Amino acid sequence: MDKLSPRPTNSSPLTPLGFLERSATVYGDCPSIIYDDTTYSWSDTYHQCLQLASSIRSLGVWKGHVVSVVAPNIPAMYELHFAMPMADAVLNNVNTRLDSRTISVLLHHSEAKLLFVDHQSTSVVQEAISLLPTNSQPPLLVLIADHDTPLSLAVRFSFTYKGMVEKGDPGFNWDRPETEWDSMILNYTSSTTRNPQPPWDVHHHGGLSSRVVRTQAASLPVDLTHVPRQWPNGWSYTWGMAAVGGVNVFLRKFDADTIYAAVRKHSSRLRVDGDGWAGGYVLVLKWNRLPATERARMKARQGMRTVGLTEMDVVDPDSGASVKQDGLTLGEIVLRGGCVMLGYLKDPEGTTQCMRDNGWFYTGDVGVMHPDGYMEIKDRSKDLIISGGENLSSVKVESVLYSHPATNEAAVEARPDEFWGETPCAFVSLKAGMDEKPTEKEMEFCRARLPHYMVPKTVVFKEELPKTSTGKIQKFLLREMAKTMGSPGTSRL
Amino acid sequence: MDKLSPRPTNSSPLTPLGFLERSATVYGDCPSIIYDDTTYSWSDTYHQCLQLASSIRSLGVWKGHVVSVVAPNIPAMYELHFAMPMADAVLNNVNTRLDSRTISVLLHHSEAKLLFVDHQSTSVVQEAISLLPTNSQPPLLVLIADHDTPLSLAVRFSFTYKGMVEKGDPGFNWDRPETEWDSMILNYTSSTTRNPQPPWDVHHHGGLSSRVVRTQAASLPVDLTHVPRQWPNGWSYTWGMAAVGGVNVFLRKFDADTIYAAVRKHSSRLRVDGDGWAGGYVLVLKWNRLPATERARMKARQGMRTVGLTEMDVVDPDSGASVKQDGLTLGEIVLRGGCVMLGYLKDPEGTTQCMRDNGWFYTGDVGVMHPDGYMEIKDRSKDLIISGGENLSSVKVESVLYSHPATNEAAVEARPDEFWGETPCAFVSLKAGMDEKPTEKEMEFCRARLPHYMVPKTVVFKEELPKTSTGKIQKFLLREMAKTMGSPGTSRL
Repeated sequence: MDKLSPRPTNSSPLTPLGFLERSATVYGDCPSIIYDDTTYSWSDTYHQCLQLASSIRSLGVWKGHVVSVVAPNIPAMYELHFAMPMADAVLNNVNTRLDSRTISVLLHHSEAKLLFVDHQSTSVVQEAISLLPTNSQPPLLVLIADHDTPLSLAVRFSFTYKGMVEKGDPGFNWDRPETEWDSMILNYTSSTTRNPQPPWDVHHHGGLSSRVVRTQAASLPVDLTHVPRQWPNGWSYTWGMAAVGGVNVFLRKFDADTIYAAVRKHSSRLRVDGDGWAGGYVLVLKWNRLPATERARMKARQGMRTVGLTEMDVVDPDSGASVKQDGLTLGEIVLRGGCVMLGYLKDPEGTTQCMRDNGWFYTGDVGVMHPDGYMEIKDRSKDLIISGGENLSSVKVESVLYSHPATNEAAVEARPDEFWGETPCAFVSLKAGMDEKPTEKEMEFCRARLPHYMVPKTVVFKEELPKTSTGKIQKFLLREMAKTMGSPGTSRL
Repeated sequence: MDKLSPRPTNSSPLTPLGFLERSATVYGDCPSIIYDDTTYSWSDTYHQCLQLASSIRSLGVWKGHVVSVVAPNIPAMYELHFAMPMADAVLNNVNTRLDSRTISVLLHHSEAKLLFVDHQSTSVVQEAISLLPTNSQPPLLVLIADHDTPLSLAVRFSFTYKGMVEKGDPGFNWDRPETEWDSMILNYTSSTTRNPQPPWDVHHHGGLSSRVVRTQAASLPVDLTHVPRQWPNGWSYTWGMAAVGGVNVFLRKFDADTIYAAVRKHSSRLRVDGDGWAGGYVLVLKWNRLPATERARMKARQGMRTVGLTEMDVVDPDSGASVKQDGLTLGEIVLRGGCVMLGYLKDPEGTTQCMRDNGWFYTGDVGVMHPDGYMEIKDRSKDLIISGGENLSSVKVESVLYSHPATNEAAVEARPDEFWGETPCAFVSLKAGMDEKPTEKEMEFCRARLPHYMVPKTVVFKEELPKTSTGKIQKFLLREMAKTMGSPGTSRL
């Protein structure tokens, strides 16, 4: 058969932005966002985004510029996920739990041109800006005010979110990406442990579009957005909801009472008709009401690849060969497919290290493959601690401990904690003649250099840390030790 | 921000074939196909396809070769939709209602290397092969036998479907496409009226994958496959069902009793769990049980673009400008997006004519755009008649009528028909001195040159057909005339 070639007609770059444009017609009068007592429609959201995009552009933001946001789950956060790439900018979500020092590092590294900041985060952001190196151009600040923002605060900002929306052009002709490889999202993450420096994942229009295929398959017409959008963009549900015309229920605070009240209120009242969904509503939290066996089955499914992923495997990290599908043989989890990130920002070496020429993305996570094809993460990657839902790299904490003049050796492991899940526990040996009791001064040393949640909550002093014959610290022994300590009850700090 | 480029890790070509591979793990023990009293699992289907693909390859079929199928909705038809492209071949579904002459034209044009034929279609296919031009290499025939296939028939074939599956290699390493622009499907269609020759749509892996996004959004965990798969591949539900682990209920015959019996039986007994579907089952036919207003609402949605389509518009065919969104101004419906076909086979001119440099696919259909963004097909393309669910081109029928020595002028329009929906109605003026009554000989003339369903069921003789001042036949007047005739009751032929 003769070979046919692509044409402009059938080769428009994939992008999740089109889903919002479509939703304004297909689901125009259906609810898009519920926040406190306000409900927006998909048509509202689309038009807000157009106006916002036009204002972002008018502030001198151009293709490839980074624009950052520091905000919790509020409507502005949602809209910016569309409006920024509509203006061709790259969105960088900054975790609201970070300290000013870390935020300043992020702003410097990403060279953010514009920074949207929620009224509750203005102090930390302004401090972060004051900490920027002198050769770093500070971003323009835009205040996201809420109904309870004090006027005294609002008047200190030249730009407000509301103002930008209002003065924007509702007829703005938004930019489709030139190719589906255009950058759209920049995420700072501490979850990859391959690199002691924080990696910066860049994600492209096509890849994010492929992820939405996954969220569609999961079909969540009413999404309580239990995941902070500051995490990887709400696991892409952010865009997926526009594809299926779902309802985003936003809560500024995540406590059990508020969440359950919202579940009760909206699961019984909200409904998305049309588009062929079998039932009116499904809530992620509904899983928690399922019988235990059913719940276990659903959770086991996390080990399957999604429709948007081409392949997943567990391989011997040295030979690259698949491990035995016996549920026992450990190997590194590798992925391949359209939804894998584009690469790391300003880190070609790091990118090449995990995105290899053999076509696989090496995740750095350890798992097994079961005989039935289910993958299971057996040991999360060894340098990772999950505290209060945040992944933190023990390597980063260790590097701060090592920078203290009294430290001889340091290793950080996870200690179980009733409230936080885990907290960082430091094992330290000191240089000769140093005092073993950590004083407030030592803790301040850490706090000045780390976000609060990364500061070790427990410090164990040892004459010497256990090492292998080649001199490597035997972290697995310390890990066991931290585990057997159990939860400290209430955390000290 | 520095520009990052795609790598093999994140640029695997999109293809719907991966959905089947995945389904063998994710939905391994869930039902894939129900046919008569047999139920297959997704694992069964995947392994059948691997074996079949290896056998197809072993018969000397290579990249870009066309393999044809003449079969109704049976499991083999489903499996071939995956197995053939897994062997890198291009699948061509042949309508079982076509006559031997037309089938022979199709086989000659596509240069099919292999032809799978259902036992009920062996006569017509063998006749088609005998009609092939002498310079045309006939395809190898493979019999798809069923439980009631006479042994006397089976022994006449060197290759059988069952035999090919059985002797195939279950460890066959199927070929992922090199690029998502690799051809996968070749469909003969008479639905485009731009060209008097039957166009051949070629569809590529990436485009078909984008369509599956659409079928996912429609979420049909149990699909009665009311649409013959010989039509555009079951509107891509064929592959979509593998993506969502749905159940394909196959019926060899489509009559109301059988369909409703199956709906009753399976809707109450079948269920697909997991993957987050809100309800257990949804049937397309369920729409028919909805209240009239709801049903009307669902049907109106046909005028919205799907998630897999980038843009849809109604434009002035001359200027290319969008028509007014007033629900009144007629224009040509144009599309753009990943799921648009790759092009026409052996027809670069036809391809360029409808897939224009401005990036739009000109459908040839006439519609309006409503103020709320809904598109509505106002007048189906004027040369199209839909009889028994088959689109037939009046131009083709007219060309046969013109080839009769007695014909002076001929025009074919749709006449309403209680059973077929519409039937072709011919308006003919004869050359001087010719008899006005069509004899059996004249009907035979048509039948020899056209599939039965294209043969005019009504012939109206006129002294002269109504024409414009420039001599063009005023088909719209004849169309009105045919409409007002009403249904003939039972069709004569």
